[in-house]
Amino acid sequence: MDGTHAIGVDVGGTKILAGVVSRAGDVIRRHEIMTPLASQAALIAGLEDAVAAVRGDAVGAVGFGLPAPIDQRSGSVVQAVNIPLADVELRDELRTRIGLPVALANDAQAAAIGEWRAGAGRGVGDLVMLTLGTGVGGGLVLDGKPYRGATGAGGELGHVVVVHDGPPCQGTCTGRGHLETVASGRAATEAARKAFGPAADAHRLIRLADEGDEAAREILERIGGYVGSALGSFVNVFNPELIVIGGGFGIAAWDYLLPSAERVMRREALRPGRDHVQIARAELGTAAGLIGAAFVGFDALDVA
Amino acid sequence: MDGTHAIGVDVGGTKILAGVVSRAGDVIRRHEIMTPLASQAALIAGLEDAVAAVRGDAVGAVGFGLPAPIDQRSGSVVQAVNIPLADVELRDELRTRIGLPVALANDAQAAAIGEWRAGAGRGVGDLVMLTLGTGVGGGLVLDGKPYRGATGAGGELGHVVVVHDGPPCQGTCTGRGHLETVASGRAATEAARKAFGPAADAHRLIRLADEGDEAAREILERIGGYVGSALGSFVNVFNPELIVIGGGFGIAAWDYLLPSAERVMRREALRPGRDHVQIARAELGTAAGLIGAAFVGFDALDVA
Repeated sequence: MDGTHAIGVDVGGTKILAGVVSRAGDVIRRHEIMTPLASQAALIAGLEDAVAAVRGDAVGAVGFGLPAPIDQRSGSVVQAVNIPLADVELRDELRTRIGLPVALANDAQAAAIGEWRAGAGRGVGDLVMLTLGTGVGGGLVLDGKPYRGATGAGGELGHVVVVHDGPPCQGTCTGRGHLETVASGRAATEAARKAFGPAADAHRLIRLADEGDEAAREILERIGGYVGSALGSFVNVFNPELIVIGGGFGIAAWDYLLPSAERVMRREALRPGRDHVQIARAELGTAAGLIGAAFVGFDALDVA
Repeated sequence: MDGTHAIGVDVGGTKILAGVVSRAGDVIRRHEIMTPLASQAALIAGLEDAVAAVRGDAVGAVGFGLPAPIDQRSGSVVQAVNIPLADVELRDELRTRIGLPVALANDAQAAAIGEWRAGAGRGVGDLVMLTLGTGVGGGLVLDGKPYRGATGAGGELGHVVVVHDGPPCQGTCTGRGHLETVASGRAATEAARKAFGPAADAHRLIRLADEGDEAAREILERIGGYVGSALGSFVNVFNPELIVIGGGFGIAAWDYLLPSAERVMRREALRPGRDHVQIARAELGTAAGLIGAAFVGFDALDVA
């Protein structure tokens, strides 16, 4: 327990990735399990198991990146869209079970911190990160520090409205036409099923696009357009130097999403913001969330 | 020139309001002119005239609130959507003409600063302001200080996409389905003309609603719905304590816009953010921008 390493845990709607990370951001060891979705108790037990599978003597703290807004005042999750967590004081619960300092972050915020400290965003003062995975998450670094809003629950960039009164959002979200509804891996799977039958999914959609299938490429181009509308809004709101795109779907479909996303973004964005913003693919790949969660864990250790 | 007062100038697409403001935020004297829209030279001369009309011995600085993103590094306006300003180093130009310290701010950002320091947002750490006027502007106070993005051009909350691939935006903005396109005073005028003929405008629309006209009320309710989509996005992104609605149209149509805006906002917003956000009407009314611009002027004086 000498604190040279922290465990980062990236909790997704599909799988949980746990890893031991050095202070330089190197992943020493990692472990992956399917996300237990049956109940809140099963999920929390899964988080504990994932930590136990990689834990070693050098680990001083654990950071969790969760697909939910976090209330940092109480360390609790009030509502999660894609996993069974609600009204739970998760930080205290996990600290008791694990016996180490524990910190919570939103998963995409963790990814943004990972890319900012050890990836594509090193040295950047104003950064917007969008993670296109099962759902869509967002992370913000503003004026040189992570930004999470008044009580830690801001930065939910996947839940901006891009289609007013549009299709209903997922799970417990009551919104309509949110970016997540039209541009997530899940949305890609739905579109793939409509076009190619019930066995298709986002992975197959990308493979078909790789093989030159025009219909598959058009679906991904259309999704990229929605991403571009949101990115244009973010440029007008945040005037960032850099936008980083991550998440499993975003990284895998990058070549097909980027051209329409960038074209629409530059149409929607005002000058001078649109003239100096850059878009980059997450350098840490799908490990960004895990590495960022570990950095959040180190922060908890260093103030403890 | 003893600096007990500053002049604030609120530059709109329709009129320019100049006022002498005390350090407590009281407006001592004010003057209003129509905005000269014929050329950039005419507009700049109009700004100088408006200042001259209220200038007195106690005035130490002038702050301008402009309907444009400001590049604070050079004090320049690169692009304005509703007034003839482009690629002009306006801060230096006005300082030379006026002979006093000059500061520039985006007009809605100035209104947000006014409400935050002397109006509905006193003591609030995270505040979003939306000004519904001829166009739609936005101002942000995050973590207890005004936020404008990497180079000062952020906070353009009127130019978030609420209808992907929707109707084209105004003037030099190349975007589509921006909030400004569907929820400004100008959008209300367009809708009023469609429903009530070419002589109708936003003012008449509100008067008809006051008289109980159902069609007029429905138009305003629909506009309120668009505002609600944007507000829901802002809650998810910023997790603010308070949203302040100002601007001439927003204040005049408040009773008709608020119910649908608040209903849709709470539908679009995730918990816990939606549970603790409040919406308030601008307390300083249409003087918010003028008063906030004066505060920005005082700041320039105090660091000079």
